[in-house]
Amino acid sequence: MHIVDIITKKRDGHALTKQEIEYVIDSYTKGEIPDYQISAFLMATYFNQMNDEEATYLALAMRDSGDSIDLSDIKGIKVDKHSTGGVGDKVTLILGPLLASLGAKFAKMSGRGLGHTGGTIDKLESIPGYKVEIKVEDFIKQVQDIGIAVVGQSGDVAPADKKLYALRDVTATVDCIPLIASSIMSKKLASGADAICLDVKVGHGAFMKTEEEAEKLAKLMVEIGKLAGKKVTAILTGMDEPLGHKIGNGLEVYEAIETLHGKGPKDLVEVTLTIGEQLLLDANLAANQKEARSMLEASLNDGRAYQKFLELVKAQGGDVDKLKHPEDLIAKEKVEVLVPKDGFITEMNALDIGKAAMRLGAGRETKEDQILLDVGIDLHKKIGDQVHKGDILATLYVRNKGIDEAKSLLLNAITIGHQKTEIKLIKKKIS
Amino acid sequence: MHIVDIITKKRDGHALTKQEIEYVIDSYTKGEIPDYQISAFLMATYFNQMNDEEATYLALAMRDSGDSIDLSDIKGIKVDKHSTGGVGDKVTLILGPLLASLGAKFAKMSGRGLGHTGGTIDKLESIPGYKVEIKVEDFIKQVQDIGIAVVGQSGDVAPADKKLYALRDVTATVDCIPLIASSIMSKKLASGADAICLDVKVGHGAFMKTEEEAEKLAKLMVEIGKLAGKKVTAILTGMDEPLGHKIGNGLEVYEAIETLHGKGPKDLVEVTLTIGEQLLLDANLAANQKEARSMLEASLNDGRAYQKFLELVKAQGGDVDKLKHPEDLIAKEKVEVLVPKDGFITEMNALDIGKAAMRLGAGRETKEDQILLDVGIDLHKKIGDQVHKGDILATLYVRNKGIDEAKSLLLNAITIGHQKTEIKLIKKKIS
Repeated sequence: MHIVDIITKKRDGHALTKQEIEYVIDSYTKGEIPDYQISAFLMATYFNQMNDEEATYLALAMRDSGDSIDLSDIKGIKVDKHSTGGVGDKVTLILGPLLASLGAKFAKMSGRGLGHTGGTIDKLESIPGYKVEIKVEDFIKQVQDIGIAVVGQSGDVAPADKKLYALRDVTATVDCIPLIASSIMSKKLASGADAICLDVKVGHGAFMKTEEEAEKLAKLMVEIGKLAGKKVTAILTGMDEPLGHKIGNGLEVYEAIETLHGKGPKDLVEVTLTIGEQLLLDANLAANQKEARSMLEASLNDGRAYQKFLELVKAQGGDVDKLKHPEDLIAKEKVEVLVPKDGFITEMNALDIGKAAMRLGAGRETKEDQILLDVGIDLHKKIGDQVHKGDILATLYVRNKGIDEAKSLLLNAITIGHQKTEIKLIKKKIS
Repeated sequence: MHIVDIITKKRDGHALTKQEIEYVIDSYTKGEIPDYQISAFLMATYFNQMNDEEATYLALAMRDSGDSIDLSDIKGIKVDKHSTGGVGDKVTLILGPLLASLGAKFAKMSGRGLGHTGGTIDKLESIPGYKVEIKVEDFIKQVQDIGIAVVGQSGDVAPADKKLYALRDVTATVDCIPLIASSIMSKKLASGADAICLDVKVGHGAFMKTEEEAEKLAKLMVEIGKLAGKKVTAILTGMDEPLGHKIGNGLEVYEAIETLHGKGPKDLVEVTLTIGEQLLLDANLAANQKEARSMLEASLNDGRAYQKFLELVKAQGGDVDKLKHPEDLIAKEKVEVLVPKDGFITEMNALDIGKAAMRLGAGRETKEDQILLDVGIDLHKKIGDQVHKGDILATLYVRNKGIDEAKSLLLNAITIGHQKTEIKLIKKKIS
């Protein structure tokens, strides 16, 4: 096999075989094909796309380039969820304990964030003592014992994807649905779960700006999952405004705790329950959607979900006493941002609000950046709310970094109009 | 300026500015942009092409990456010709002396060949003593004195093109008309000539297989020339069979000498005169096409063109006595290839006949290969000829290398049918 022939084939619009895709990925991972040929291949793929089979072969080849987690020692159906990334998305922190409290096995390896806020792992690290680096055998034992573990990536998962992604990033080939889908799925397929629910975010705060694109991506990921023998579903959810009210690592843990006490904001609860329903059904723990929803609501309201969260934190070395005063997870210094005029909030640019949080120190601009775990934004108003000049729009929790910039980004991100706007949160389910 | 933004712009189908193209070429030549970004850029260009202005900026930027020859010390209009490459193409050997004999200034720097036969420079080296490496000042003085010099490339001409071409070759991005046109023109624009005639070969023996493609390439090169302030014309000529009868370095010099004596094969003479007419007009040495043709024919027939050829050879140190016995330029050992059946020659795959000559040693497969200057093929039959089984189809001049392979390639390259076929040699003129 010759890489030039394979580039030519893709350039000319033909579908590649499994063997050809495996050859490309294996040889590239081993350093036998140089970057300059792969970048030409990626650009040809950008133009001519890949069909479902090709994207599946690519996802599997990338999965097989590194370590996969074997969860077969854990009894029952292992569930996992993945979000394509949004602002204020703390669903995993709530959903994991919630599902585990109802008997599902939630064995999650999660990444650190690059961008507006930290990843799930960064958020959990805002709890004093919480350890994210755990040996695989201890990880498995913890799930066997309490039904849940949320740890950092261990081993070398999909190194081909890492190498390819780094190249895509500097060659204008990121924005290509088959490449995005196979990148996400290569890691999900390595995670060992039996049922996976993908939360595909849509809107200006998300990577997929339109519902059409998001649906295309979701369908392809579901198809790759199926072809790879997994139960995969996708939910398209809106990212027209941040999810919930709080953005920032400690702030998001705070909001997760409130939600686990049955006092969460409506949009955050709705996304959590929608994904939860799907995974309870996939894990054969509920007979139908209605039953699934009542089970989830009951666990949130009667404290079982919160108890499971405490078990999780304790099992991973976190100080559960600190969780009694979640305000301690948050910076002491506050800055209030006021509503500039009367009207209704009609738009909230989630991406810019995310950037505002990043300027305060809540996220990383480069891999080397240190995150400030206790800074962030608490939004008092959301789309559809009526506001008056001088109302508190948001409270910034700060540590003497990027305050003015954050304030101005935040104010620019908000549009105040004359009419109440409604936005649709749960847009579509794909299975 | 950021290369990722420029790749994205080309990827999204927008035209690049002069500044952007100059940035790409300058930075790439200096090694400031890595190959993997340029190959993505090239593939995006393959898909979205370039408009005439972009291709011109590219050609000029590549020209300016290296040395240009300043011919301004030579009085009169300097003319040049370039062939996109064909089998048996010895036009330069005849056209140069012919034009110089009529007062034109023919200052040619030529390359070595890679492929079926050598380049013009290799062919001239089959004349004992002929020196191709000459200092620029001596080159200019020779053109001032006798109106002609044909030497090897001196200096570092268009290094950006060399680097880019090497990358295109291994990333499936060779076959892209704006990239081909700007590559050729970057070198031609560095050559210092005022008027350039491009011989764009069309047919299965040429790089451009169809007249449509060839015309597109020709038009773009003419346009680039114009935008760069040169008088550029293009002639589309057939490469459905080799040009003339002889293929191989010494053999082609032999055929050039015959032609300079007024005894050349019809097709070779026709291409030479067609280009010659154009360049005589461009050099203001003839009032119209008819006059140009009579001048050219007269010089071929009365020996002036041949005398100029002898002057050229002498000026560059060649042994003119050897030219009295041009058969000495050719290998002594001959192998005859016979016509296998009765009929008419309907097809001659020029590329395969070129490969046959290469197998005998007439061309280089890799840059390091040594050429055998005296081997090659003399075709006794061409398309349209009636043949009988046992006639001599061709004489191979050999040196104990690749004989069987050449014979079989040659026989496979020929189609004998029942009807006389005619082919059109001069297909179109573009100015």
